[in-house]
Amino acid sequence: MTVARLEQQLSFIMEAEGLKQIFRQTVLPADRRAENDAEHSWHLSLMAILLSEHAGADQLDLLRVLKMLLIHDIVEIDAGDTFAYDEAGNRDKEEREQAAADRLFNLLPDEQAIDLRALWDEFEARETEEARYAAALDRFQPILLNCCTEGAAWRRHGVKKDQVIARNEHIKEGIPALWEHALGMIDEAVDSGYLDK
Amino acid sequence: MTVARLEQQLSFIMEAEGLKQIFRQTVLPADRRAENDAEHSWHLSLMAILLSEHAGADQLDLLRVLKMLLIHDIVEIDAGDTFAYDEAGNRDKEEREQAAADRLFNLLPDEQAIDLRALWDEFEARETEEARYAAALDRFQPILLNCCTEGAAWRRHGVKKDQVIARNEHIKEGIPALWEHALGMIDEAVDSGYLDK
Repeated sequence: MTVARLEQQLSFIMEAEGLKQIFRQTVLPADRRAENDAEHSWHLSLMAILLSEHAGADQLDLLRVLKMLLIHDIVEIDAGDTFAYDEAGNRDKEEREQAAADRLFNLLPDEQAIDLRALWDEFEARETEEARYAAALDRFQPILLNCCTEGAAWRRHGVKKDQVIARNEHIKEGIPALWEHALGMIDEAVDSGYLDK
Repeated sequence: MTVARLEQQLSFIMEAEGLKQIFRQTVLPADRRAENDAEHSWHLSLMAILLSEHAGADQLDLLRVLKMLLIHDIVEIDAGDTFAYDEAGNRDKEEREQAAADRLFNLLPDEQAIDLRALWDEFEARETEEARYAAALDRFQPILLNCCTEGAAWRRHGVKKDQVIARNEHIKEGIPALWEHALGMIDEAVDSGYLDK
């Protein structure tokens, strides 16, 4: 029983390996290559450990936050990365990601499949304090990397300041001080010509 | 105060960004490129969530395990990756990594610097159940990727079965069933010609 369960879990772990091949629109400051979802998930998880004092909530279950962040993009192994400002892509994103979640999480033993699916659903719904905190980090990190790469992804896609604000404003629900900081960064990016007004 | 702390934390988060540029000897199954430390840290953290039932310990503080895994390789931003079977490189590894830990963690506000350094020291010492569990995953994952890439890193460096066993045997302290499984994988790799006897 243990052996069969372990093999099933390792199969999922090798399927999840595919996250290292899902490339995002965000590029890395050091070499301007596209960031992949595995690196992104690691970076958000590190941020979650360090920034919890700034969360809007008084008490956070940090373990649940980390679990959410570590699995939040796994559906993109099947559904692909949808650029935040791609309106057409975002129209059928939910359907594609639901199908991916159905397939991928069900590769695990039943109770683990249910647990991970519940964590992913929680992240997507942004109704708990933990999900709002995790989602705020997920939205802030690409702004941070854009600001460190002269707005590379924004400029390539002709994204405007209003779009960045509309798309990411819910950062303030999870981490109010981080949204204040982001607004300053966005203004600086406009002043520097890295983001269109 | 909040603003200054947040800026200090974000500076560390951008310094830690460098982990995405530290390439390991292990290659990825899909495209045979070198894995980097950020991807590796994410993968181990996912494994930690899924495999805790197999841990040697009855009770594990999974939050502490995840924190350790998410920061365990950060010192390599300064110290570089040292291949597990590189005897010369491993001779001065500790000295290089201690200096890196001194510099990097101290970029954070004091109490966070102390916390992260303590987690890293705990991971390195392998004296707690959490550290033994985390270290077992850190040693198993490259074996898993080697076995999925026809022993690419082993063959490139002429590593032998005895070395793999001697170097990784402590997996059994953290996750006994995983070491049993690894022994089977290692034997298969020898039979397939991916690892020298």
